[in-house]
Amino acid sequence: MAGRLLLDAFLDAEREAVVGALSDWVRIPSISAQPLHAADVERAAAWCAERMGAAGLEHVEVLPTGGHPAVYADWLHAGEEAWTVLVYGHHDVQPADPLDEWHSPPFEPAVRDGQLFGRGAVDDKGQVLYHLEAIRGLLGAAGPGRLPINIKLLVEGEEEIGSPNFEALLDRERERLACNIIVVSDTGMWAPDVPTITTGMRGLVAFDVTLRTGERDLHSGQFGGAVPNAARWAARMVAGLHDEEGRVTVPGFYHGVRPLLPAERESFAALPFDEASWAATAGVVRLEGEAGFSTLERIWARPTCDVTGITSGYEGYGVKTIVPAAARFKVTFRLVADQEPAAVAAAFEAWAKGQVPDGIELGLHQEAWVGAALTDVSHPGIGALSRAINRVWGTEPLFIRTGGSGPEEALGRVLKAPVLYLGVGLPDDRIHAPNERILLDQLWKGLLAAGELWQELAELR
Amino acid sequence: MAGRLLLDAFLDAEREAVVGALSDWVRIPSISAQPLHAADVERAAAWCAERMGAAGLEHVEVLPTGGHPAVYADWLHAGEEAWTVLVYGHHDVQPADPLDEWHSPPFEPAVRDGQLFGRGAVDDKGQVLYHLEAIRGLLGAAGPGRLPINIKLLVEGEEEIGSPNFEALLDRERERLACNIIVVSDTGMWAPDVPTITTGMRGLVAFDVTLRTGERDLHSGQFGGAVPNAARWAARMVAGLHDEEGRVTVPGFYHGVRPLLPAERESFAALPFDEASWAATAGVVRLEGEAGFSTLERIWARPTCDVTGITSGYEGYGVKTIVPAAARFKVTFRLVADQEPAAVAAAFEAWAKGQVPDGIELGLHQEAWVGAALTDVSHPGIGALSRAINRVWGTEPLFIRTGGSGPEEALGRVLKAPVLYLGVGLPDDRIHAPNERILLDQLWKGLLAAGELWQELAELR
Repeated sequence: MAGRLLLDAFLDAEREAVVGALSDWVRIPSISAQPLHAADVERAAAWCAERMGAAGLEHVEVLPTGGHPAVYADWLHAGEEAWTVLVYGHHDVQPADPLDEWHSPPFEPAVRDGQLFGRGAVDDKGQVLYHLEAIRGLLGAAGPGRLPINIKLLVEGEEEIGSPNFEALLDRERERLACNIIVVSDTGMWAPDVPTITTGMRGLVAFDVTLRTGERDLHSGQFGGAVPNAARWAARMVAGLHDEEGRVTVPGFYHGVRPLLPAERESFAALPFDEASWAATAGVVRLEGEAGFSTLERIWARPTCDVTGITSGYEGYGVKTIVPAAARFKVTFRLVADQEPAAVAAAFEAWAKGQVPDGIELGLHQEAWVGAALTDVSHPGIGALSRAINRVWGTEPLFIRTGGSGPEEALGRVLKAPVLYLGVGLPDDRIHAPNERILLDQLWKGLLAAGELWQELAELR
Repeated sequence: MAGRLLLDAFLDAEREAVVGALSDWVRIPSISAQPLHAADVERAAAWCAERMGAAGLEHVEVLPTGGHPAVYADWLHAGEEAWTVLVYGHHDVQPADPLDEWHSPPFEPAVRDGQLFGRGAVDDKGQVLYHLEAIRGLLGAAGPGRLPINIKLLVEGEEEIGSPNFEALLDRERERLACNIIVVSDTGMWAPDVPTITTGMRGLVAFDVTLRTGERDLHSGQFGGAVPNAARWAARMVAGLHDEEGRVTVPGFYHGVRPLLPAERESFAALPFDEASWAATAGVVRLEGEAGFSTLERIWARPTCDVTGITSGYEGYGVKTIVPAAARFKVTFRLVADQEPAAVAAAFEAWAKGQVPDGIELGLHQEAWVGAALTDVSHPGIGALSRAINRVWGTEPLFIRTGGSGPEEALGRVLKAPVLYLGVGLPDDRIHAPNERILLDQLWKGLLAAGELWQELAELR
């Protein structure tokens, strides 16, 4: 029996068991951001390890880190000729508040209308589980006892707090994690009937900027008009970061930016995207950005700059007649391939120093640094993923990207392997929000697509 | 005996009594800003009323207001031909903190090295008192029982909190307060050996500005680069308020600005002013402002604009990857004669509305409104004051202005009379700060100068 038929049969028999397993996992409140839940994160790792063993995986091990543990397992019997695939996901979840907006409690999973509700249902326990269960379907009692490829799984426990110990883990476990291709199971697609393949994530460089124009706030009557005003100098810097066309003015900022390939641009344009309803979802009336690019291009494929906070002087009620002596703002740059985070940081620092004259103290403190991830759509792995998705969803997938930043760039960079994103999440799954859910039909399709992808990857060799 | 000789003799006999009286008054902590001290403000008013009576003044009355009381008294026996002078001052004081920086307690006045230390010593109890004591010297037991002019005194109790009920009081008491000239006794001079005459104060228009670009902060990965950023739009507005020459860009802002007269410009330039030490006192390294004007012209005679506070987005530790949906800033305009506060406010509102495109919500809330005061240096009262000062200090006074704002404009406007400033405060008297003091020599000179001024004003008729 071929893999697909096997997994179809497995699903027919095991749907309830899979939902039960996901429910058990979701029941563990593995909130990595909250120290009170540290033991729950450990329990979620242990649950994952046990399920890996049940699926027929070997070398199952909970890997300690400087923070919450990751879990590793593998099955390496496909032969030396076969590719090795590393599947990445995470077992930690976001905090669940505001609790009173949940229709059923976040850690008491409930199935309604073909959806399983609960914190972590889709981000990311459900998406890890369909890989585990596909492996169980092929390796376990019901299956042939083999996979067409070698497989390794790495399920971390700190994704929701920015993966602070992940790169050190990758460095340390580089040999054990060696692979030909990485499959990230933590993203989404456009719509159930518009399957898509994510090809990239943006990087991030963040700075905290301080300005000091004097020792203390001064009386605006006695001094105003003759001394520098820190709020004004900060505002000048912030306003100067963009030109009238919405382009970032920092010299060298766009250096290395990989242009969109025609195939991607066409894919973006082919998506059933309605700007007005997107704006309504975002809660904004006006859309704006870099001239010459569509909204989707702006958020997925163009580097951007946002000031995330600014503060100076008096913020209370009424009038305080001062000339503020200090100001502070925070700025984040979202990067795309092949911008170098270090080069962007250096370019910003040089630009910033040129914005203030002598006599004004400038402080630049870099706060974050994540590279952009981008998988070339011409890579054969993308073709394999595309065929796998097409066979399960019955539609040729389009390409999308995601504007956020994550550990995927470190995975590809440290392990020197291309990254594929097989994600079944949907825009209205409410990740990080109340009433997170996974559509069970997407869960089943993910499980089948995982099996199809392994077969396709096996045939690439 | 002429007035001056009388007052010289009075002083010889009464120095200790005057210091004792000032000490008594300073001992009353009449802090208008602190509700706990409301009874003390009443006591300070009562003390003032009693001293007025002792000086030989008539119609002494504590005038209730919507807040702390003012005190009125007059002496109107100089004849119908004589001018009537209204002397203005205040009996309330600033808070005294930080208390631990006082060398002697703020409300236990102490005389050291020819100075009397205490809160209110010079601002403004000492300066009211030299008028009262000059009257006592001429009207009282020692004196001839008459003054060369009719005199009215108005000593308010809310100057340090922005005189919120003062204009209503002036309106209500317009007839009782009618006068030919106003003498404000609440300002200073350049230095003990550089006597000066203040000719004007700046006005004030203040706004609280809010911007809203969306319903809520958005994820900068998912939305950054395609939606408006409230912090950026606020910064653009703030940065856009000035051009590269330091001029305010709001169209119409400079409408009506009365140019400096050559006599004032020469006076300013003749002052022994050292920019470097002024900057050091201010705690700044760099001086900047409107091109084409000196530092003193900028703070005294030019209208200016200062952002006094700005806030948007995240201000805490580390990175929060948001696109802020709301921003707020506060802006104050310092005005000079003959700018119309209402016209400046309207010009700013029109400008602000033109700075943000559709889809961004702008809120404009006006928070303060004070006109600028300016006395023409060619007014004969200025000549009289100049001669009076020259005779006491032995030097021709120079003209200065003050960059702050106060109730003086309302006085002149409501009572339709020119305003003269006879002020003996010094830049290092530490008003509003710990260790406020009055130099006793300045106090005596102020007392003598008040008498000289009345004589000069009498001779103008």
